[in-house]
Amino acid sequence: MEQFLQIPSIESKNRISNIQQLLINQCIDAALVSDNANKFYLSGRVFNGYVFIPAQGDAIFFVRRPVELSGDNIVYINKPENIADTLLQKGIDFPLSLGMELDLMPYAMVQRICKIFPNANISNLSSIMRQVRSVKSEYEIELLKLSGKKHAATYSQIPNLYRPNMTDLEFQVEIERTSRLEGCLGQFRISGDSMEIYMGNLICGENADAPSPYDFAMGGAGMHPSLPVGCNGTTITPGMAIMVDLNGNYTGYTTDMSRVFSVGTLDGLSTKAHECSRRICRELSLMGTPGVEAKALYNRAIEIVNEEGLADLFMGHRQKASFIGHGVGIEINESPVIAPRSRDILAVGNVIALEPKFVIPGIGAVGIENTYVVTEQGMVSITLAPEEIISLD
Amino acid sequence: MEQFLQIPSIESKNRISNIQQLLINQCIDAALVSDNANKFYLSGRVFNGYVFIPAQGDAIFFVRRPVELSGDNIVYINKPENIADTLLQKGIDFPLSLGMELDLMPYAMVQRICKIFPNANISNLSSIMRQVRSVKSEYEIELLKLSGKKHAATYSQIPNLYRPNMTDLEFQVEIERTSRLEGCLGQFRISGDSMEIYMGNLICGENADAPSPYDFAMGGAGMHPSLPVGCNGTTITPGMAIMVDLNGNYTGYTTDMSRVFSVGTLDGLSTKAHECSRRICRELSLMGTPGVEAKALYNRAIEIVNEEGLADLFMGHRQKASFIGHGVGIEINESPVIAPRSRDILAVGNVIALEPKFVIPGIGAVGIENTYVVTEQGMVSITLAPEEIISLD
Repeated sequence: MEQFLQIPSIESKNRISNIQQLLINQCIDAALVSDNANKFYLSGRVFNGYVFIPAQGDAIFFVRRPVELSGDNIVYINKPENIADTLLQKGIDFPLSLGMELDLMPYAMVQRICKIFPNANISNLSSIMRQVRSVKSEYEIELLKLSGKKHAATYSQIPNLYRPNMTDLEFQVEIERTSRLEGCLGQFRISGDSMEIYMGNLICGENADAPSPYDFAMGGAGMHPSLPVGCNGTTITPGMAIMVDLNGNYTGYTTDMSRVFSVGTLDGLSTKAHECSRRICRELSLMGTPGVEAKALYNRAIEIVNEEGLADLFMGHRQKASFIGHGVGIEINESPVIAPRSRDILAVGNVIALEPKFVIPGIGAVGIENTYVVTEQGMVSITLAPEEIISLD
Repeated sequence: MEQFLQIPSIESKNRISNIQQLLINQCIDAALVSDNANKFYLSGRVFNGYVFIPAQGDAIFFVRRPVELSGDNIVYINKPENIADTLLQKGIDFPLSLGMELDLMPYAMVQRICKIFPNANISNLSSIMRQVRSVKSEYEIELLKLSGKKHAATYSQIPNLYRPNMTDLEFQVEIERTSRLEGCLGQFRISGDSMEIYMGNLICGENADAPSPYDFAMGGAGMHPSLPVGCNGTTITPGMAIMVDLNGNYTGYTTDMSRVFSVGTLDGLSTKAHECSRRICRELSLMGTPGVEAKALYNRAIEIVNEEGLADLFMGHRQKASFIGHGVGIEINESPVIAPRSRDILAVGNVIALEPKFVIPGIGAVGIENTYVVTEQGMVSITLAPEEIISLD
């Protein structure tokens, strides 16, 4: 029989214990975890079922599918109502206050769970899960570093994939293929329904300025209004900036990295803005030590951009993004968020993608994105690839 | 300025009017639609915002992003609370009963909306949306037919992509590339979080019998426990059945089609089971006229399988799927569902994927999947490609 846990037992125990500490602090008796990303965090696998975490004692993994797994504290169920039977059998007190991921869990599902625990007040577990997951363990950081290496290896092959007169889509498809053969899992996890992306985006020329439904600096019109983001069939011509922002999910943990390519030489404004992005990343990575407020990083970026007279183009032009960086890990939109009203404070083990980008109308988008680990000494990049604009000629 | 509506105005009006009819029948004053698939259904585009549909009168499209769209009944908002201001300005009565997609909408979001309409009872709009979307218009059927043609064109190229000693992943990546160049949007829509798939699956050999977290006949272990479905790195060898089930989202409307390929000749049991699948599809497509119960199709399939002595292998082996077919359209899991306890009744305009498949331990999965349109004369396939096992030699 296959083992249920797909991460070291101590990892699972530590993660659960960190959640339990916050449950106790917030006087929540137990948590019922149902989100796939959170279940993967707790067990190292995605399964159909729930994780029941009492504030004290062992967590129970309630599994519906896949069949035939073995391990400690695994209980097979057919439906969530079976959870109650197990708690009764094991003599575990029913919680009087129950935490669930209310930012994600559908209303009807919460109602169904409430009927199983009719005496429980419900509280929102979402921020606890975000907080715990925002501090990565050494084990998780190794997985992120491995993703970063493979991500960089994929990007290093991009110049070989370009052929004159390609469209943005054709170029992206060749990069997708290379990325997949390098081990990219393709799909990457996004919390909630705030964005929908296939693999990532390659955007060039005027398309970088097309507004999207999502909170992105560069939208891109996309190939179809059902997935209105990314490349739109533009033929790549000399003088365009080609922004490549494809996901780095090679290990279940995603790095986020963007680089700019060009055919021919870019104009002075684009080059200046690209160097400004590199400067912002350099300064913010030195500034980003534990205890620093996330919003202070944002504010410093704005200062630099104003100093260089590039505010109109920063983080979008016709439509602007509201942040310059975000936590990454199992999902692409984790904490901390580097935004003006963020309340997050940097801690050792945060993993943050910084993406100070500029949209240059008619040319494309420029700037870099790297993924950094927060250490006592500042933010250390794990997406090590050349940062200058890379010529495809 | 770009037009908001990306479908003919009459399509949008008819779809809204069909929903209004059901709102009136169920005594619901208004609906607030927030799910991306449903918003795409009503407008032909994905946007960040809401559609407010009063039981009588014009719907209002509340848009947050993208910026700069124009059209009738479009109101830009910064946050959902602005909806109330607009209703007041327009003199529209606040609903006393409000329908929302409670099967999908996160609990916290529903709570936030409830504060905007404190006097409204809430009811579940999910089944109304499923019901309306299950009957496709001629316009939608044309989009599905176009997807079916492109889907078949992609599959026709599969034999050219095979090279000896390929792994299942390498083979799938070449098909993904071909599919993307043929116009596949890559991502396809799945309602809820019941499954997670990247592009679709190619499964061969013993891997077809690996149980998955999802309600699938064939799971496949996947390349990583964070995405435990599909190919697992198996080297393709003679005698294996190679099941290709890649998505057909070429138009925002997805066809679903599976075909089996082989290197060398398959054994007698596999061939027999494959022919049984074709027989089931033939019989059920003739039987599937308007007014027929979905469960009657399921029951007839089971009869055929029992008659042929193949029940142990039908719809999975170590783990079985609970259905043999499902509606498709904007999403891959629509109504009607062809399952033993389904209450759905076939209607003209339903579009249904039938996928009676068999898992042959050690060999792979066999059987076909086609997408059918329900007509007065029965179910007509729109995924027209050879159905026999296709040799790669």
